[in-house]
Amino acid sequence: MQSIVKATYRVRSDAHSIEGRARAIAVEQSVEMPVEAIDDEMVRAEIVGRVLDIADRGNGIFAVQIALAAETIGADAGQLMNMLFGNSSIHDDVILEDIQFPSALVGTFGGPRHGPDGLRQRVGASRRPLTCSALKPQGLSPIKLADLARRFAQGGIDYVKDDHGLADQAYSPFTARVEEIAEALRGLGGSTRYMPSLSGDLDAMRAQIGAARAAGLDAVMIAPMIAGLANAQRLIRDHPDIAFFAHPSLSGSRIAPPLLFGKIFRMLGADAVIYPNYGGRFGYSPETCREIARAALEERDGLTASLPVPAGGMTVGRVRDMLDFYGPDIMLLIGGDLLAARERLVEETKAFVGAVLEHRSE
Amino acid sequence: MQSIVKATYRVRSDAHSIEGRARAIAVEQSVEMPVEAIDDEMVRAEIVGRVLDIADRGNGIFAVQIALAAETIGADAGQLMNMLFGNSSIHDDVILEDIQFPSALVGTFGGPRHGPDGLRQRVGASRRPLTCSALKPQGLSPIKLADLARRFAQGGIDYVKDDHGLADQAYSPFTARVEEIAEALRGLGGSTRYMPSLSGDLDAMRAQIGAARAAGLDAVMIAPMIAGLANAQRLIRDHPDIAFFAHPSLSGSRIAPPLLFGKIFRMLGADAVIYPNYGGRFGYSPETCREIARAALEERDGLTASLPVPAGGMTVGRVRDMLDFYGPDIMLLIGGDLLAARERLVEETKAFVGAVLEHRSE
Repeated sequence: MQSIVKATYRVRSDAHSIEGRARAIAVEQSVEMPVEAIDDEMVRAEIVGRVLDIADRGNGIFAVQIALAAETIGADAGQLMNMLFGNSSIHDDVILEDIQFPSALVGTFGGPRHGPDGLRQRVGASRRPLTCSALKPQGLSPIKLADLARRFAQGGIDYVKDDHGLADQAYSPFTARVEEIAEALRGLGGSTRYMPSLSGDLDAMRAQIGAARAAGLDAVMIAPMIAGLANAQRLIRDHPDIAFFAHPSLSGSRIAPPLLFGKIFRMLGADAVIYPNYGGRFGYSPETCREIARAALEERDGLTASLPVPAGGMTVGRVRDMLDFYGPDIMLLIGGDLLAARERLVEETKAFVGAVLEHRSE
Repeated sequence: MQSIVKATYRVRSDAHSIEGRARAIAVEQSVEMPVEAIDDEMVRAEIVGRVLDIADRGNGIFAVQIALAAETIGADAGQLMNMLFGNSSIHDDVILEDIQFPSALVGTFGGPRHGPDGLRQRVGASRRPLTCSALKPQGLSPIKLADLARRFAQGGIDYVKDDHGLADQAYSPFTARVEEIAEALRGLGGSTRYMPSLSGDLDAMRAQIGAARAAGLDAVMIAPMIAGLANAQRLIRDHPDIAFFAHPSLSGSRIAPPLLFGKIFRMLGADAVIYPNYGGRFGYSPETCREIARAALEERDGLTASLPVPAGGMTVGRVRDMLDFYGPDIMLLIGGDLLAARERLVEETKAFVGAVLEHRSE
């Protein structure tokens, strides 16, 4: 019995072309050549993708389910993307909507090691929503960023993260920044955790994790679509004690967000997945956001959950609304709205944290 | 004088919103927070993105040109994508259309080391179009793939590449495959060159280059959008004697293909860029393909050119048409159409190679 990955593609097509389109995707994502020219019996029987189902969703949209051999993927997250959507990503009328992975493949990737419970434990929280903010703008020195981190911590925030634009720039070198910020938080003696953003190639990211670890940190942020999924996978597996936050940078392709963030990043081992919430600066619908959170949290394949972190233009005024919408298994990330309070940043952070704690006891 | 990257975004918007949209992109891709809350003078003056121009293209499409500080990018190709399109990629009405890089940044990346001339030199060709085919299907053993390579070489092909689905699978481990194929070609004593496809994380790719080198090879293929651009950059810089072919797998985002393949991959150092040709299995227009080729080849910033490799469902019957369209600075890649000839593969390859040589002397 061979092991099969079932991938569902949403295809815009007219009704009389859809069978051909479906077969073409099955071939494109497997052998990528005329099937009739394949002599090899094993390849014909096991490797050529097969159309399992075509469902008419109406309005010229079809859901095409295709079976692909898990053997073609092996244990490599980069190859996973290659075989599931490498060439088909170039068709602007095809969206990779959903995947059912065989349990052996899920076991190979392994999923989160910390997840919601581990992230709560680090900050001494019971089962409540967590709070987070971001260090920005890009361009500040390590000392100024550390001052911001200190004030967020004084306001009682659980986590502070680097703005995802912070890398290893001349005005804020990674190691200097991490040391400065870690020192500032240590000085307060509170529970606020800081996660720096990884950048560069795999070697650079490894060195950055080393620097973070040396500064006493135990969480980092990575943008898997920029790092390359195989490199994110490698770092996660090599550093089991570090919690990984996945950032959505460069994720705007034709992969459905609930699949990419809630399933693929989770399977890779993201302990938390940051994504643009509805009603902010990005266009995701409430339904998309609900599905991302569900995919990240639901019981599946024995995997630890990934904590959903909706963000992108959120405000303190929306805390109640977001908690009503998402429930307690959530980390609320508010950056700009707190920074806009300027000299009142500590108070505004307290208001944010207070709103989260109050809602809990309602 | 600070150094500026000028990025042009194509935005779908109504006329009265476009100024706000343009400012929002400038902020999103730089400081990502309310500008009025930024105290730091240097950040306000140098780091905040600025709208340089808004041009109405008609039909609700605007071209927005934005200045971003090159300092935020440094010398990291991953960070380049992050700062140019990280979050804005998530807006489905925004396309990253073009970029003007400052020459210092281009110099940092460095561009191709071999390019069209180097690729011709390796196969003893004068200034003529080069020919290429692909080893597939996925699932064949190294011995069967080597047999295919041998027959392509007997037909006189210049280059054979791995199908981009070939990775390091159990049925065709990378090292065994590379040794088998290199040996088969060496046995013929011709000039046909083989480039294997890199997969996995940076360490795995390094080991694969090592294996390729040990087998006497001097060209490889990489899919930068899967590898992560910083990792592709690293491998290219660390292996100046190896020619790199860039594969478009997972490139289907909202980055204009001429920019991604012809400018960004070229700046990174791709000696050849493979992309889907018009009239094949993918939807690119002739105009898009012409622009990709132009961007890859034109004199720019003192960079060596990248050789365009249009592909994706090409046939021997289209050789004349493609050469008329592209001229001599091109590598024609025909895979499935040659493989479909089965026991006549050598003859069909000869017909392909012959059609290219004939056209040249017309």
